[in-house]
Amino acid sequence: MNTHLIGLDWGSTHLRAYRYDSQGQVLDKRALPHGIRQLPEGGFGAAFALAVEAWPDVPVIACGMVGSRNGWREVPYLDTPTDVDRLADALTAMTTPDGRTLHLVPGLRDPSRPDVMRGEETQVVGVAALLPDVARHGCLLLPGTHSKWVSLRDGVVTGFATVMTGELFGLLKEHSILGAQLPPAIDDEHAFLCGVDAARDSGAAGALSRVFSARTLMLDGSLPPASVPDYLSGLLIGDELRIALASGWATPHDSIHMVGEGPLCDRYVRAAARFDLTLRAAPDATTSHGLWRIAVAAGLVSTQATA
Amino acid sequence: MNTHLIGLDWGSTHLRAYRYDSQGQVLDKRALPHGIRQLPEGGFGAAFALAVEAWPDVPVIACGMVGSRNGWREVPYLDTPTDVDRLADALTAMTTPDGRTLHLVPGLRDPSRPDVMRGEETQVVGVAALLPDVARHGCLLLPGTHSKWVSLRDGVVTGFATVMTGELFGLLKEHSILGAQLPPAIDDEHAFLCGVDAARDSGAAGALSRVFSARTLMLDGSLPPASVPDYLSGLLIGDELRIALASGWATPHDSIHMVGEGPLCDRYVRAAARFDLTLRAAPDATTSHGLWRIAVAAGLVSTQATA
Repeated sequence: MNTHLIGLDWGSTHLRAYRYDSQGQVLDKRALPHGIRQLPEGGFGAAFALAVEAWPDVPVIACGMVGSRNGWREVPYLDTPTDVDRLADALTAMTTPDGRTLHLVPGLRDPSRPDVMRGEETQVVGVAALLPDVARHGCLLLPGTHSKWVSLRDGVVTGFATVMTGELFGLLKEHSILGAQLPPAIDDEHAFLCGVDAARDSGAAGALSRVFSARTLMLDGSLPPASVPDYLSGLLIGDELRIALASGWATPHDSIHMVGEGPLCDRYVRAAARFDLTLRAAPDATTSHGLWRIAVAAGLVSTQATA
Repeated sequence: MNTHLIGLDWGSTHLRAYRYDSQGQVLDKRALPHGIRQLPEGGFGAAFALAVEAWPDVPVIACGMVGSRNGWREVPYLDTPTDVDRLADALTAMTTPDGRTLHLVPGLRDPSRPDVMRGEETQVVGVAALLPDVARHGCLLLPGTHSKWVSLRDGVVTGFATVMTGELFGLLKEHSILGAQLPPAIDDEHAFLCGVDAARDSGAAGALSRVFSARTLMLDGSLPPASVPDYLSGLLIGDELRIALASGWATPHDSIHMVGEGPLCDRYVRAAARFDLTLRAAPDATTSHGLWRIAVAAGLVSTQATA
């Protein structure tokens, strides 16, 4: 089967490669440990060569931190509001050491805050293509180290915001007095939901006004030391949801789609229920689909069937 | 001159000793590096012996982490509301290896949150004795790693709350992406006030919804990398003030007294002005005065002049 495009999802800690047919179906995929912080000897060029090795010389499109200041080539952010066509117009082309042409997707910048993303814009394009209702008028949540809340109207990304929930959880657990001298963590759903409720009930003060309770509840004997991480997780995820409502990024009866899967997304679903919010799982494979959609909009591939 | 009392301010990282005359005047003071985390060989007994060495065998009173779970002897917290007499009634006496009697001041617990303090209760007693108006109806701020906001009515500590401002600043600066790869910090008052204003203007969402801006403003070129720490400092101190107002710990026309001095307190004063709040410096030497007042209330010393 003919290869019409290669896509790379190239972040800080991962490099995933996709080989597409003429209809955008992924024929083959590879996962390499060469995120931009973990490059092999030979650097970006060597990692790239491994990712596309033995695949035909077709256009290559890449998103993620590869286009950041610490990446292979810095690609300026594109300001919101923007849609897939503006993203496609803003690709930066470069020639790789092995003579291929690599097109880098720009990250997005919301100038009103300001806020930035790099890599997630491609996931958003993928979801928007797969879920027309969300693209028309929706809110997307991409949970993680730096969670993103994205607003869409009529196919346009109108704005977005970052909450550092995952990173803050790690800091508090690994480096703060709240996480000091704890026994190995156990799963404690009750503690998790207590944390969520503490964030919700903190109102306009917010969870930073309550975070010390992770220690005082433990000293009090009402929170087992091994459950402190789940309490903190609930407090911070709950605060992210509280912030989203207080900021108008989401409203209680919105149908919010969440990109991702696994235990972290399950936590968000359970926390959202305490706010009368419903989070729905978006289809997976959003990045590979987004890369394809941007490449098509840029005219890198023909969507006509080829012989 | 006769010695009537010895007082110890014994925290995690410091040990200060005071020798008092019959009127509560400090005749002599010592500072030792032997906080409970930095004990000399011989442990608590050896540190104690150094602190009181060659001083007369009079009652000794101590406050701070020496009475915590990791201290010399754990002293249970006393619940608010409480006043100096209840604190004095709750002293725990122990005999030291050199045969002296040591009275440990309990920490306080606000059961409504719950929240705890250990050491600050003695500072509060000292300020309340020196500032009768504040004791009658006031709000005290003790800024630091774990800032405390304390409410006083008719001489009674009615409640308090902790905000981990100082610790969170350290975590973000030392361990987060926001502080990564920054040049040596410079003093930047403009950046500090921008951070304060960002927290103030975050409204009910709070500064956690804006903290990523420390990175995006830098990437944008509008915040010099060396000024990121001052911006973060402003954002977190500003958020503490925002929280205090949102929680009703303070109201805009309150006269709030702040215990402490130096650059950190100066930052709070400048940040408070952006909220139309006035922070006044409380008299210093509050801990030594508080120890004296609790000892007097406990009957450990006579305030009669002696021959």
